[in-house]
Amino acid sequence: MNLIEALNWRYATKQMTGAVVPQAKLDIILNATLLTPTSSGLQPFEVILISNKALREKILPIAHHQPQISQASHLMVFAAWDNYSPERVNEHFSYMNKKRNMPDSTTDDYRNMMLGLFATQTPEQHFQHAAKQAYIGLGFAMIAAATEEVDATPMEGFNPAALDVLLNLNDTGFKTTVILALGYRNAEKDWLVKLKKCENR
Amino acid sequence: MNLIEALNWRYATKQMTGAVVPQAKLDIILNATLLTPTSSGLQPFEVILISNKALREKILPIAHHQPQISQASHLMVFAAWDNYSPERVNEHFSYMNKKRNMPDSTTDDYRNMMLGLFATQTPEQHFQHAAKQAYIGLGFAMIAAATEEVDATPMEGFNPAALDVLLNLNDTGFKTTVILALGYRNAEKDWLVKLKKCENR
Repeated sequence: MNLIEALNWRYATKQMTGAVVPQAKLDIILNATLLTPTSSGLQPFEVILISNKALREKILPIAHHQPQISQASHLMVFAAWDNYSPERVNEHFSYMNKKRNMPDSTTDDYRNMMLGLFATQTPEQHFQHAAKQAYIGLGFAMIAAATEEVDATPMEGFNPAALDVLLNLNDTGFKTTVILALGYRNAEKDWLVKLKKCENR
Repeated sequence: MNLIEALNWRYATKQMTGAVVPQAKLDIILNATLLTPTSSGLQPFEVILISNKALREKILPIAHHQPQISQASHLMVFAAWDNYSPERVNEHFSYMNKKRNMPDSTTDDYRNMMLGLFATQTPEQHFQHAAKQAYIGLGFAMIAAATEEVDATPMEGFNPAALDVLLNLNDTGFKTTVILALGYRNAEKDWLVKLKKCENR
């Protein structure tokens, strides 16, 4: 399948079989997600990969009992930075410069410009911006899944505050933004698989 | 190139040559973007494709004179819905049901649930949510460009209000969120092409 064929093949799978996605395919999906381009390279999100069945059963009521939560092979929970603190920004540039064998002074002007901009914004604005970067990652994960013929269902229908509590994210500096269920379609039981795709016009 | 190779090949190109992206490649990038999955299929964003050189010169000062604005072949301007009005939501379901030969009553419960949710939110919350969907589209466009070996630079460094005015978006119900410059890297002049990629950790 080429890319366009893969994107026509994929859909927001409503019923999954429970079959497990092989590790090699998971690796490709996760690697693609790690390679997500983000604003100034900040990478202000993490992915929590959940396969544990008992934990997923606890997520079920938080996510309106959508069946993919239990029927999926894995859940990718995208959690974004809850704010752009100077510490986080500085640490990012320090990591980047070290990796590139460059002195920190190389990026000081740009870094200070960013710190100045972020200082004018609220933590909620920071989080909204970080969440958008996570959504680029969501796009990358969905395409990687499609090219590997793994079904993937993006889900916003859950209570993020409750999920943060369940995953012990409070005080970690991360907040959940979106979930991607990975698995395999149950074509016989899924009402959506037969319906025409309604792409953007 | 497989997907991971393409994602390692791509980078946020800082200097482009001005060479023009062929129509066949543009079509693939645009088609992939149209196939972006979005919340409830709302597709709450549009892409404005700009090649006109004079218009791009007017965008340049609005975008901190970043050289890719003029050196690119095309700019994709992602503009998101400025709110989720009942009219927009109803029109979406009506379009979808028509395309799927289903009576509108099929989706009434779900549609009314959405209308109820959106009624509790501000237009700014609607726009932030729509912008996130546009960022999924940004991800789709970047991957499609990479697989076609077209360079692509995502740009948030511009004045959205000024760009809205320039593109006559006011009163259209759309606001600009992010720009993607498409073109070809000028590897000799680009300081970033030689530096190590700093992917998410």
